[in-house]
Amino acid sequence: MGLKLYSYWRSTTSLRVRAVLNLKGFDYEIVPVNLLTGAQSGPAFSAINPSQSVPVLVLEDGTALTQSLAIIDYLDVLRPNPPLLHSDPLHRAQERAAAYAIAMDIHPVNNLKVLNYLRGPMDQPESEVIRYVHQWMHHGLEAFQRKIRPGTAFTFGERIGLADICLVSQLVNARRWAFDLTPFDRLCDIDARAVSNPSIAAAMPENLPDAA
Amino acid sequence: MGLKLYSYWRSTTSLRVRAVLNLKGFDYEIVPVNLLTGAQSGPAFSAINPSQSVPVLVLEDGTALTQSLAIIDYLDVLRPNPPLLHSDPLHRAQERAAAYAIAMDIHPVNNLKVLNYLRGPMDQPESEVIRYVHQWMHHGLEAFQRKIRPGTAFTFGERIGLADICLVSQLVNARRWAFDLTPFDRLCDIDARAVSNPSIAAAMPENLPDAA
Repeated sequence: MGLKLYSYWRSTTSLRVRAVLNLKGFDYEIVPVNLLTGAQSGPAFSAINPSQSVPVLVLEDGTALTQSLAIIDYLDVLRPNPPLLHSDPLHRAQERAAAYAIAMDIHPVNNLKVLNYLRGPMDQPESEVIRYVHQWMHHGLEAFQRKIRPGTAFTFGERIGLADICLVSQLVNARRWAFDLTPFDRLCDIDARAVSNPSIAAAMPENLPDAA
Repeated sequence: MGLKLYSYWRSTTSLRVRAVLNLKGFDYEIVPVNLLTGAQSGPAFSAINPSQSVPVLVLEDGTALTQSLAIIDYLDVLRPNPPLLHSDPLHRAQERAAAYAIAMDIHPVNNLKVLNYLRGPMDQPESEVIRYVHQWMHHGLEAFQRKIRPGTAFTFGERIGLADICLVSQLVNARRWAFDLTPFDRLCDIDARAVSNPSIAAAMPENLPDAA
């Protein structure tokens, strides 16, 4: 039966996992979970992930793995080539720190659950929600930009790594929120180069079977 | 000169790094950064970390490492004993996923910067901020609880690991916010066992030289 990825086309954490599965040449099946119609809280998916979030990678024996970066670490150990992190421990820590500047400091704070809390219980108008979203994007992308290497094709060298995968996913989200990327031209350059790779292109939302 | 950890006694991400430095027997010096008086935005600390956040680990050659979990991965590679993660890739991914249920899904959303945004630009009264904080703690700790092993001394076995370190830090924060831990007795048990370890005890806020 092989690997099954429960994914939503627009979910940027699902995009991270799809990108790594493609880059490493894994054979997998995508099972779309429509977050818009609430499929994540239905009994079928709740049985797979009681936390009702995507992505979930289900292995051949039925084990369900959650948390995009934990899944990616697993895939990187299982199939080390191409590597997602440098082998030098210090370099590796710097790559992880850049990835976390997005995965910890932007994504969770701007997650749909949090935004719906601001809209609902906190009664914030959409204009305030947009200002909030942009604030954390700006802060996090500035931190990311300070961490990357100057003059390389990708954030840490000449190959696509973990930080690039987080960047590509974050910029999909940034564009969706009409965030001004003008001050981040080096990030846009890296993003364009990454997205021209067929493995990354195939993982992009618009190329997914469940894209609406 | 050795390792220097820029830390604030109450910062729970600093606590994670202190715990690992102690568990692995590293020799290091703590440099307190008083977040209450804004020392993080002063020129001295901004030169070390332009993102103006703790913890920062400064190595012998002056290299500054940021992001608590990236620093911890670095320390774990540098000195693999005692290990923070199981050697089996699948088990390892499950431990990371539990750690991330706290480090991604609770901590960033309840970070002081975000809360100050709710209090300031969003003009929320403290009662609403508390409700917001508790909501994400509840959601994240439930997810964490579902991921851990039944019947073990710590979350994934008989030794303190990455998930335990994230848990201890999160429960410090939960108690500070008077969050009701009654539904989480297994987590409180694990926490009590971890905190009775002298390496963890020495990392706790109240035992820090800069504790107020």
